[in-house]
Amino acid sequence: MAEASRPELAQALRQGLRSLAKAVVVITCRHEGKRYAMAATAVSELSLDPPSMLICVNKIASLFLPLSAGADFCINILHADHVEISKRCSGTAKGEARFDIGSWSDSTLGIPVLDEAQAAFVCRNRSCTKFGTHGIFIGEVLEVVSVEQADPLIYVDGRYSRVQPTFGC
Amino acid sequence: MAEASRPELAQALRQGLRSLAKAVVVITCRHEGKRYAMAATAVSELSLDPPSMLICVNKIASLFLPLSAGADFCINILHADHVEISKRCSGTAKGEARFDIGSWSDSTLGIPVLDEAQAAFVCRNRSCTKFGTHGIFIGEVLEVVSVEQADPLIYVDGRYSRVQPTFGC
Repeated sequence: MAEASRPELAQALRQGLRSLAKAVVVITCRHEGKRYAMAATAVSELSLDPPSMLICVNKIASLFLPLSAGADFCINILHADHVEISKRCSGTAKGEARFDIGSWSDSTLGIPVLDEAQAAFVCRNRSCTKFGTHGIFIGEVLEVVSVEQADPLIYVDGRYSRVQPTFGC
Repeated sequence: MAEASRPELAQALRQGLRSLAKAVVVITCRHEGKRYAMAATAVSELSLDPPSMLICVNKIASLFLPLSAGADFCINILHADHVEISKRCSGTAKGEARFDIGSWSDSTLGIPVLDEAQAAFVCRNRSCTKFGTHGIFIGEVLEVVSVEQADPLIYVDGRYSRVQPTFGC
């Protein structure tokens, strides 16, 4: 492989990440009374003991300041039918307007939970590590709700998709 | 949501994560001359500046010690036809035997790269943060190769799958 300049490398990374298919989630939090929501794919399972997950959030995202201030958060996995919710939570709509689509409840901590989510993980915000343009937030999972049938919305190759029901093993 | 004990919560987390569909990758490294490989899904894009990704690796994985010692690594995204490579790199085969399936080359740093990968990201091991049973390793991306057509192997709901080619937007 040839050496690449930083912009070339960022472009190559962007291209390569088109294959890193991911379930689409909406990360939510409440801070100083206000609700925040953001569609994302930079999410990972972390540890089962303690039960935990992590999210990577761009410093320019509206969610970044509340999370940096320690706000707890919820990771809501979208169903394949939730394209409009994903678009609403990643487009030009801001603040409360992001909750106009879908049915949202409050967790016991007051964090917005999407009622029709494939799964929702309410997390205690345990730490933030900044790296480059992003912050990595570790969430200790406090509450989980999930459905039986997994059919999540997937983002891959710059488009939405869903998994095939009959591909094996 | 009712309060759950720690084992109940871990079980609920495991159930909820069945919907967190992910592309399957094989993480590789070379340490003291030996090659290591491990199938994984706990991977996330991080920042474009610097180009970076992160991986979460269980402390009991054979890959953990080399990575903890600072070994650089490669994240190889599998193609939907690579089920056997995934199984080989997550099953009972150990060490070199994990490279018996697939065509592997060395990057300029000597790290194994899967020739037929959807994308391969050679990463400088920048940091390790331990949390619970796992370590979070941040990799600064040094080299990327990728193919044009994205059709990655997906792990969802406890099985392998691939995305539907014609689901929109």
